[in-house]
Amino acid sequence: MAISDVRPVVDGGRFPAKRVLGDVLTVSAIVCADGHDELRAQVLHRTGAGAWTPAPMLRGLDGRWSAEVALTELGVHHVAVEAWVDDVATWERTIARKRAAGQPTHLDEQSLERATGEPRRKHLVSSPALQVVVGDRLAGCSSWYEFFPRSTVDGTIRHGTLREAIDRLGYVAGLGFDVVYLPPIHPIGHTHRKGPDNALVAGAEDVGSPWAIGDETGGHDAVHPQLGTVDDVRALASAAREHGLELALDLAFQCSPDHPWVREHPEWFTIRADGSIAHAENPPKRYDDIVPLNFDSDDWPALWHALADVVRHWRAQGVRVFRVDNPHTKPFAFWEWLIAEMQHEDPSVVFLAEAFAAPPVMHHLAKVGFSQSYTHFPWQHTPWQLREYFEHLVHGEASDYLRANSWPQTPDILTEELQQGARSVFVCRLVLAATLSASYGVYGPAFETMAHRPRPGAEEYGGNEKYELRTWDLATASLTGEMTTLNRIRHRMRALQHDRSLVFHHCDNDRIVVFSKTAPHRVLGASDEDASDDPVLVVVTTDHWTTQAGTVRLDLSALGPGPWDDYEVVDLFGGGRYRWSGADNVVILTPDAPAHVFQLRPLAGGPQA
Amino acid sequence: MAISDVRPVVDGGRFPAKRVLGDVLTVSAIVCADGHDELRAQVLHRTGAGAWTPAPMLRGLDGRWSAEVALTELGVHHVAVEAWVDDVATWERTIARKRAAGQPTHLDEQSLERATGEPRRKHLVSSPALQVVVGDRLAGCSSWYEFFPRSTVDGTIRHGTLREAIDRLGYVAGLGFDVVYLPPIHPIGHTHRKGPDNALVAGAEDVGSPWAIGDETGGHDAVHPQLGTVDDVRALASAAREHGLELALDLAFQCSPDHPWVREHPEWFTIRADGSIAHAENPPKRYDDIVPLNFDSDDWPALWHALADVVRHWRAQGVRVFRVDNPHTKPFAFWEWLIAEMQHEDPSVVFLAEAFAAPPVMHHLAKVGFSQSYTHFPWQHTPWQLREYFEHLVHGEASDYLRANSWPQTPDILTEELQQGARSVFVCRLVLAATLSASYGVYGPAFETMAHRPRPGAEEYGGNEKYELRTWDLATASLTGEMTTLNRIRHRMRALQHDRSLVFHHCDNDRIVVFSKTAPHRVLGASDEDASDDPVLVVVTTDHWTTQAGTVRLDLSALGPGPWDDYEVVDLFGGGRYRWSGADNVVILTPDAPAHVFQLRPLAGGPQA
Repeated sequence: MAISDVRPVVDGGRFPAKRVLGDVLTVSAIVCADGHDELRAQVLHRTGAGAWTPAPMLRGLDGRWSAEVALTELGVHHVAVEAWVDDVATWERTIARKRAAGQPTHLDEQSLERATGEPRRKHLVSSPALQVVVGDRLAGCSSWYEFFPRSTVDGTIRHGTLREAIDRLGYVAGLGFDVVYLPPIHPIGHTHRKGPDNALVAGAEDVGSPWAIGDETGGHDAVHPQLGTVDDVRALASAAREHGLELALDLAFQCSPDHPWVREHPEWFTIRADGSIAHAENPPKRYDDIVPLNFDSDDWPALWHALADVVRHWRAQGVRVFRVDNPHTKPFAFWEWLIAEMQHEDPSVVFLAEAFAAPPVMHHLAKVGFSQSYTHFPWQHTPWQLREYFEHLVHGEASDYLRANSWPQTPDILTEELQQGARSVFVCRLVLAATLSASYGVYGPAFETMAHRPRPGAEEYGGNEKYELRTWDLATASLTGEMTTLNRIRHRMRALQHDRSLVFHHCDNDRIVVFSKTAPHRVLGASDEDASDDPVLVVVTTDHWTTQAGTVRLDLSALGPGPWDDYEVVDLFGGGRYRWSGADNVVILTPDAPAHVFQLRPLAGGPQA
Repeated sequence: MAISDVRPVVDGGRFPAKRVLGDVLTVSAIVCADGHDELRAQVLHRTGAGAWTPAPMLRGLDGRWSAEVALTELGVHHVAVEAWVDDVATWERTIARKRAAGQPTHLDEQSLERATGEPRRKHLVSSPALQVVVGDRLAGCSSWYEFFPRSTVDGTIRHGTLREAIDRLGYVAGLGFDVVYLPPIHPIGHTHRKGPDNALVAGAEDVGSPWAIGDETGGHDAVHPQLGTVDDVRALASAAREHGLELALDLAFQCSPDHPWVREHPEWFTIRADGSIAHAENPPKRYDDIVPLNFDSDDWPALWHALADVVRHWRAQGVRVFRVDNPHTKPFAFWEWLIAEMQHEDPSVVFLAEAFAAPPVMHHLAKVGFSQSYTHFPWQHTPWQLREYFEHLVHGEASDYLRANSWPQTPDILTEELQQGARSVFVCRLVLAATLSASYGVYGPAFETMAHRPRPGAEEYGGNEKYELRTWDLATASLTGEMTTLNRIRHRMRALQHDRSLVFHHCDNDRIVVFSKTAPHRVLGASDEDASDDPVLVVVTTDHWTTQAGTVRLDLSALGPGPWDDYEVVDLFGGGRYRWSGADNVVILTPDAPAHVFQLRPLAGGPQA
């Protein structure tokens, strides 16, 4: 009797798998035994300190046994698999087969009688228990909108406030986003403050980078005096929720040289040979406006607890979503501890890892607990790159621990593709981000106004909001329609609310990328009445200057229709509906209509599956 | 600091990986850390109770670190991975980069000095230790020839002897095989003995099935009186070795009703309600000539030890290769214990699992310790089936624990394809078996004489040697040339001596199967002077009646030549040499020349790689 390959599993059980509230978890395993006995297997499931609940497993054609478990509680769940020989069923089968063959069964009936009186779980074996962390639904699927609260003043260059940011919420909610994310809102250091476009010397009026955190008025638990107060943050979080939005704050665990901790806790920093505190550097680059925390300091427990208290402080103001700046420059062990601690206190807390690091580092951050991870999506341009990259992200175990959150741009990233400024580029990158991964985000209003002027020679915005105040003319924002449409499609089509079913399809035109998603097996939950379980097929051109046509060859096994079936594809994004047939169908994309987001459904009036 | 995905690993370390003596083991892992420090990693390796020996690991482009370990001892090896931050190297790099940029380095030099005085392995982490079982080279690669020793008499029907089997060894060795395997050589029961072609009633002269083991003269440690004595077995094993062959015996752990254990140890069998001993059955089928052992009997420790003593008994006669009959009807735990015990006593012992069971059972038997496994090769006929089946066998972890041993036929298996009797079928199945898996076997002389008369309606031989004496006219055996050639190719081409590098290639004619193997990275060992490390490309038709031509599209990344390179393919099997170019080349196969086994090499006189 043997149980092996129990899933979901991450690193042999070292880390928990991830799901969200309302998911149906499929637990599966290879169960096998010598001989020809009747086998039974079940999943045992419990949450927290609850009792084990069994769910019978069924054997599939491939010998893999599985059972489904509805995840109706946030927090840490435990699952294990048990299997045994059912002697009674074995004898019953023996007797039935012999009777069918007209053979005597007297002795077998006596054996059945004896087996019925004995313990029924012969050769019982159990797998080790595995963990599954069930997070808020937002952790699994969310659309993010980032803006700088100090640049919310219309028409004139003046330092904005959190109160003005509240006024901006209606606009963001109108676009259909789920999360509104603000860069750091704390006091900004003066020492070595950066000037416009990352200039080494700032002028007297320059506002500095919000990521250079802390001055004499306070550090990570304070609010920049020109933005407002902690009370304003509470009001902002509350107002966001009234708009159906969650407020996300930035956790950038680093300090300006003026941060109170530099004076109060010099032991939390790296001390150089001359007794001074080391600034950040990655030679030959120097970051004089930042001093990194030393997570290995002798006093590390006090530092770690102080950082946890920072998170607790903002949670107390109603914030439960955090975008974590550069987590890959802090120890994995710190994040594993911090996230577990915070989710123990409130399992609905969400952490997004902003790391654009090597894949092993990205994956490890996800394993140690981050709810979501930024991706290298901005640099995947061709259909081949997109396919390789996203297949890698959802392949094998990765889909059990890493949840992609794809951004076309950020304040730090303006790719050469976007610098072209073509409307089609913006539209296509938006469609790809919003459909390739269940979570995505944009840095606005730069995105919807199609800002595309770079700092010369860099993949960054010129006149970057990171270093100066900006004003945006939202009235002329030209992509708000597309954003609103896409967010509505994402809310309606369950297929787009997860990444596990992502399949790429062949197109004979290698400038066109084609992929599909199907709805998860079954989803529990309330607000799903308007949702559709139909498959979604996305077709996007990567040529933004000329018309591209091609024949798509669909892997129908991923989608439902048979090879000779007719079906309807409804373009939820660009409009129009078409009758398609079988695997091979023609698509035509132009710079004006560069993307389809098709809902696949049976022909109206035709035979239903 | 984190180490993950250490390879080779089987079921997260629950079972050992397998290698053979002389292999170079690549141990690899994902090693990553926060920040930008210089990392170091090493493999620790030890055998048995030996000391840990370190081998430095290098990082590949994909972030995977690896080191190679030469396996020069049989038995259980242990490997683990360690990684740490090298502070000294980090400071040296910092100083070098600053110097290159003309920046001051005074403080960094002081830090370097301080780091040099401190322990050099900061943030040291270790993986759990993993096991690798190193077996005899025969376990990794061997060609088997099975014959019934009682059917070794030429020209007349008379019961042969082990002495006559010795006379047959020169013939087998001449064909180039490595292992000569004999079906059970023990006394055969009388009760319910089977007659010719599995008839329920035997005549007085019928010899019975060798798998119905035991009569009043002895059981598993005895020799059938008409075959000879235990001394003859010793002589046979010794004579085989002189011919460069290993003798393999059959371990069929079941009894005839006349086996001594039935009287002496009725507690080792299943007792029915009426007090009688249960015969084997799989309703509605009955096997009255066999009583199965009850491995779960209350007295199981004594039974298990008695079976281990059977193996010890034959090992004492010079036998170290065993073909195990139907292991899937005995507990996994028994095999795991038995094989570990026997290999602890002699790590060169080889066990071949004869199970044609569901894949999970086949795989689990391999995991618990079997050195080799029969495969479902006989039923994979089309190029698609062959590809799917063998890719599954070498995919992922499987190649670390399961070693395929493919047979075109056995005394129990004569597929409809072979029943056609076409010479091309025999040739193609032989080529496929001998090249798809590093180990293969044939049931001879039935194979080389192309015996193909079935028992009507069955996939079995008619006039089966299992139930009656046969005589074979070896002088007319028509496939001995092909067998000799193939075994010579297998000995010469290192690429064919393992399965890990198996790659299937596309052919636009779907009746033609194309696959390649390349030599392992490096192999230690003595008798390799005549061996070649060149890639081998096998091209076989599955149409045995007409000519088939097609264009092969090679995956050149698996083979060496560049897309515009010319190279030579030398047909080691059918003869002939051709100049090929790039990926696409034409092949033509006919019923008379249905297979190529190409050696790929640079053009004579042309530029060498």
